[in-house]
Amino acid sequence: MKVISEVTSHGGMQGVYSHESKACNCEMTFAVFVPPQAIERPCPVLWYLSGLTCTHANVMEKGEYRRLAAELGLIIVCPDTSPRGNDVADELTNWQMGKGAGFYLDATEAPWAEHFQMYTYITVELPALIGATFRADMQRQGITGHSMGGHGALTIALKYPDRFKSCSAFAPIVQPSTADWSAPAFEKYLGPDQSTWRKYDAVSLVEDGAVFPEFLIDQGLADGFLQTGLRPWLFEEAIEKTEMKLTMRNHERYDHSYYFISSFMEDHLKWHSERLGK
Amino acid sequence: MKVISEVTSHGGMQGVYSHESKACNCEMTFAVFVPPQAIERPCPVLWYLSGLTCTHANVMEKGEYRRLAAELGLIIVCPDTSPRGNDVADELTNWQMGKGAGFYLDATEAPWAEHFQMYTYITVELPALIGATFRADMQRQGITGHSMGGHGALTIALKYPDRFKSCSAFAPIVQPSTADWSAPAFEKYLGPDQSTWRKYDAVSLVEDGAVFPEFLIDQGLADGFLQTGLRPWLFEEAIEKTEMKLTMRNHERYDHSYYFISSFMEDHLKWHSERLGK
Repeated sequence: MKVISEVTSHGGMQGVYSHESKACNCEMTFAVFVPPQAIERPCPVLWYLSGLTCTHANVMEKGEYRRLAAELGLIIVCPDTSPRGNDVADELTNWQMGKGAGFYLDATEAPWAEHFQMYTYITVELPALIGATFRADMQRQGITGHSMGGHGALTIALKYPDRFKSCSAFAPIVQPSTADWSAPAFEKYLGPDQSTWRKYDAVSLVEDGAVFPEFLIDQGLADGFLQTGLRPWLFEEAIEKTEMKLTMRNHERYDHSYYFISSFMEDHLKWHSERLGK
Repeated sequence: MKVISEVTSHGGMQGVYSHESKACNCEMTFAVFVPPQAIERPCPVLWYLSGLTCTHANVMEKGEYRRLAAELGLIIVCPDTSPRGNDVADELTNWQMGKGAGFYLDATEAPWAEHFQMYTYITVELPALIGATFRADMQRQGITGHSMGGHGALTIALKYPDRFKSCSAFAPIVQPSTADWSAPAFEKYLGPDQSTWRKYDAVSLVEDGAVFPEFLIDQGLADGFLQTGLRPWLFEEAIEKTEMKLTMRNHERYDHSYYFISSFMEDHLKWHSERLGK
């Protein structure tokens, strides 16, 4: 693992690191905030998965998570959203496919499968590195994310209910397999057999019996992607048919940007901290 | 005035605007955060002046001021650091001169004087526009800034002790007329007669009898510009010979970045709010 930068902030350390990823078959970059409490004891870990076009840096710069994470003693892990590098397949004029658009799945189709293994990267390879490198209590992990990263957080929590004690999302894509901006990517990454798409789709996972105790979702009602891309009501409808709990908060006037995310970031950190313990 | 963007955040409105500046003889862009309290009453104004290479956007994206400004009811005004445009003089390979390096002074020398009138812009033209456009209580203004912007905040407060009720700075350049990274710019903007430089130099202003009641300065001790560029002890030494008060806080491990600024931003907002009233 290489240290790209380590900077003191809010009494803790905001680091950026890179490593050779076996899953993605390329060098991957990620950000980790370590709170001051980690000097004394292992701290719980909150994963933040970012949205389309983002890298690790967007939330690190604009997410406004450090003040309260330093108070609550949370390690915040912010991975990249796709494999990177000159030999990684891409569609240069399509921001919904390829680099910046990994959709937290393991691609099976050429030319994508060679590098686009973000599901294995996020659920296997990177957690092992985080657990081995930082003073992290891996028995206490939560997961959140924004938009495509909200999709990642919901689907991964539903697949790993024993690993994650808490899950939330900002404006998540709840049913990517049928949304305009994600279904084409799913077909290219996973092929035309839509039965293989269901394990990467939060609504389908709930319909197929996956269980996670409770979710928090914040959604802005001035979000331009709400009607055709995000459609959180599909998740609400699926959850209503189960024993699971969903706290769904809709916010007048808020859009899809980090001005929205940062406004509610501290509520999410509190949500996770209450479930992860201090 | 043109609206570039207006986005809801933390219950208030983060806006970006542009206008034709008479002082700078070009189009200028600035950011204003309006807290939710402005719906009910005029709110006090805190000016934030940015450092070398910055625009209005750096602190808007990374400064983490909105959460507490929305709670305290502060309007935050973030101007650009220089005139902009294709016909504005510049030194393309020198980040300490020209665009992004206006030093909050009125240039007298060619080719700079045609546009580089940032002192008049910040002290006359933009306040008039803010007062006429936003629900701002211009009887309650404070001023802060970072690095070159800290220089701007200190010098402008010392020149306008009746206008500003509070002044603070993050890692300010306290004596730009003798610092490596600013003295060459002063000579180009103002000419070789150094007596004209003193009104744009905080230490010189104090030596020459300017008075402001009290200052708050935060400085990181891992700041790479501390020894040759910033040298806050020169301001401390000048202040000690007067009746003025200075709260000087040095912070181990902190650098010159927005990770430092954002760590102490809320302390500064409280400092100003206590002196401006709610």
